[in-house]
Amino acid sequence: MQAEIAEQLKPFFEPKAVAIIGATDKKGKVGNVIFENFRVNKERGIFKGAIYPVNPKLDEIDGYKVYHSVGELPEGVDLAVISIPAKFVPATMEDIAAKGIKAVIIITGGFGELGEEGKRMERQIYETAKKNGIRVIGPNCVGVYSPDTGVDTVFLPDEKMDRPRSGPIAFVSQSGAFAAAMLDWAANEELGIGKMVSYGNKIDVDDADLMDYFTGDDSINVVTLYIEGVKDGRRFMEAARRITRVKPVIALKAGRSSYGAKAASSHTGSLAGADVIYDAAFKQTGVIRAEDFEHMFDLAKAFAQLKGKLPKGDRIGIITDGGGAGVMASDAVAKFGLRMAEPSEETIRFLRERFPPHAVVGNPTDVVGDTDAERYRLALEAFTKDPNIDAILVIVLFQVPLLREEEVIEIIGDYARRSEKPIVAVAMGGAKTERYAKMLEERGVPVYPTPERGVRALEGLVRYSSYLRR
Amino acid sequence: MQAEIAEQLKPFFEPKAVAIIGATDKKGKVGNVIFENFRVNKERGIFKGAIYPVNPKLDEIDGYKVYHSVGELPEGVDLAVISIPAKFVPATMEDIAAKGIKAVIIITGGFGELGEEGKRMERQIYETAKKNGIRVIGPNCVGVYSPDTGVDTVFLPDEKMDRPRSGPIAFVSQSGAFAAAMLDWAANEELGIGKMVSYGNKIDVDDADLMDYFTGDDSINVVTLYIEGVKDGRRFMEAARRITRVKPVIALKAGRSSYGAKAASSHTGSLAGADVIYDAAFKQTGVIRAEDFEHMFDLAKAFAQLKGKLPKGDRIGIITDGGGAGVMASDAVAKFGLRMAEPSEETIRFLRERFPPHAVVGNPTDVVGDTDAERYRLALEAFTKDPNIDAILVIVLFQVPLLREEEVIEIIGDYARRSEKPIVAVAMGGAKTERYAKMLEERGVPVYPTPERGVRALEGLVRYSSYLRR
Repeated sequence: MQAEIAEQLKPFFEPKAVAIIGATDKKGKVGNVIFENFRVNKERGIFKGAIYPVNPKLDEIDGYKVYHSVGELPEGVDLAVISIPAKFVPATMEDIAAKGIKAVIIITGGFGELGEEGKRMERQIYETAKKNGIRVIGPNCVGVYSPDTGVDTVFLPDEKMDRPRSGPIAFVSQSGAFAAAMLDWAANEELGIGKMVSYGNKIDVDDADLMDYFTGDDSINVVTLYIEGVKDGRRFMEAARRITRVKPVIALKAGRSSYGAKAASSHTGSLAGADVIYDAAFKQTGVIRAEDFEHMFDLAKAFAQLKGKLPKGDRIGIITDGGGAGVMASDAVAKFGLRMAEPSEETIRFLRERFPPHAVVGNPTDVVGDTDAERYRLALEAFTKDPNIDAILVIVLFQVPLLREEEVIEIIGDYARRSEKPIVAVAMGGAKTERYAKMLEERGVPVYPTPERGVRALEGLVRYSSYLRR
Repeated sequence: MQAEIAEQLKPFFEPKAVAIIGATDKKGKVGNVIFENFRVNKERGIFKGAIYPVNPKLDEIDGYKVYHSVGELPEGVDLAVISIPAKFVPATMEDIAAKGIKAVIIITGGFGELGEEGKRMERQIYETAKKNGIRVIGPNCVGVYSPDTGVDTVFLPDEKMDRPRSGPIAFVSQSGAFAAAMLDWAANEELGIGKMVSYGNKIDVDDADLMDYFTGDDSINVVTLYIEGVKDGRRFMEAARRITRVKPVIALKAGRSSYGAKAASSHTGSLAGADVIYDAAFKQTGVIRAEDFEHMFDLAKAFAQLKGKLPKGDRIGIITDGGGAGVMASDAVAKFGLRMAEPSEETIRFLRERFPPHAVVGNPTDVVGDTDAERYRLALEAFTKDPNIDAILVIVLFQVPLLREEEVIEIIGDYARRSEKPIVAVAMGGAKTERYAKMLEERGVPVYPTPERGVRALEGLVRYSSYLRR
């Protein structure tokens, strides 16, 4: 079943030919931005399929022949993107069915979110789809962003929103505005998003379908979900159980509280349901629940960077050059239910023999403010070898006077690459620190701006690892 | 007593003449960086006092006459900054006493943190100070950063650390490395720091003294403290009670957990003490406890920007253009123990009459993704007038297509200025959003990158306001 669904969803991400129904030459209009996205991506050699704009009133856009109706389209179209007014969509769906197109993204809003008439149209569209084996994303959605294959139905132009680079994170969002804000945010954070789907009113394709698709998508190694409500709980749990066996899924379920549930019901009509049920369902299926969106992407970054490297237990070793940051990290270890590792006698001896007397050997090991890169190397050498330590948090305050930044970055990157233990870094500071953090991330080390967020990311790794070992 | 202490501490921030003991011309050395800080600040017209370098081996640095001993110094020196090796400090303190200097910052490390001999020297220094009415910051510290008066003993050069602009936030940190990291971070965040003090081993000047000083310092309107342990609890509580009557104090007390307490004891020898006692002491004295440093500065920003504007109750009104973000904010209102306001019938009628049917009128009020700036104006007009709403969270996803960014920024800034209710904004996104957020902050609106952090900042305002009304 999973393989079958994955096959059905493939045209959304790798269409051979896309029809853009409602394409226009009027700059800034939804139908123009989407057409332009495909056109530019084709010019760049990223989008490999054919592009067929559809508009009864135009003959040509940017050198592309415009088809006046769906019926006129050539054969072989496997994806339609619709941005015409809501009232025309049900009939267009009939044309699409007649043409044999099996995947449709309905961007257009003005359906179920507006009331009964909209809901009626949604039912009609769904029936057409069901009868003809068509899969539908939307309506009232932002659709799909897939930078590797050039599918991009995000109708916001570059002036409004930056697009993130590609990477191993998939992001699924019920909310469209949130999806756009998150893409923009991810671009700035240099977080790589390989696939984004925002399904809006989700009359058909939902989280479960997308989890099934991502299960077999090798370009994706971690899936993030923003959910307001799940319609078919059993189906969700089945798909979740399948995918979490091979890659982590992080869910941000909004509407936890009665306040939030009420807001969710006004927003997407979702029945949020008792939060404890979601909590239990996530736990049973190995889905990692995020507290908020910062948490969700902090976890996603850790999983994406560490490429499947997981801790064997919950014993954390901390290395720091700032005592205060070490204290905060230790507090966070307690707060998030992890354990402080007790370094082996060999680790203690090894470091005591090599460190100056004012450095603190233990856990945290504080290489102190006059540290050079070599003390970090020694601490990492001991901690990565120590059987009592499962994962390492290395805090670097790059401001300390004698630390050569590039040198310590190479050392941490080197141990991160060679060690089987996950190494997560914390770097607190300003613009220079951000630059050094990027350099660490280029070397496969996830970096966080506060000790709490670094430890919280480790907790996610521990939680997923413990689920897999069950 | 408070006034007396404030008078004693004045030379640390506004010295008439500073002696830099251990000044040197060797670039990058602590004694050189500190001398250069004062020299450059004097050249810029920021530091108004005289500068007297002291070094037995030099006659001149950068055109400044160097004194060979403390005894040779001219009269009128009211601050000494010491960066000579630890073993020479006790004797130098005697010279300082003989010269009648009443304020000393001892940057030098290698005292109590190294063991018994260091502790003995600290006691000797303290006795000299006590006998002669000298106040001491340090030893083993970063000292003072006061951008308005040009005092800057932070011995990290610009290549290592950016310095923040001035502003109404005071920051006191036991940890030196943390202080440096935070200044660097604040510079990047464009958070204005009016005074920073890092007191290291605090043999004399401590949090209580500094709270007393800041009580009467009109350039400061919010005080942040990073504390690992308090020695004199009663004195701390007295000073805290005094200052919180006139301005908010936010404390990050590390070493909450047994893990953290153990780390704190290795770091500054602080006996962290039972965390519940700190909790109770903070509550009794109106000190707002922060969960982590992001929380501390999120709160500081809110207080600094809102300049004493406080909510009269805990009923939050939310305006958003993204339904998902509204749901997350509603969840956060519940999580942080606040209440969702129930808008008055007048508000509901006013907005229903003016909004299109697909916008959601209520709380949250969702102006939805096709909003223009005008809908924000209408919502703010209604919410600021509504007697059922105490504080407003306005969420702007600037990515939505029809919203003119400058226009909505002007509108929010305008209501923030005119309304008696605090208005806090949330803007999620990338580089463009960061620019718009800065524009909002220039207009006195604190902005946060996630709904949770925005609501958490409101919670701090509510907590302080409710303490003051007790």
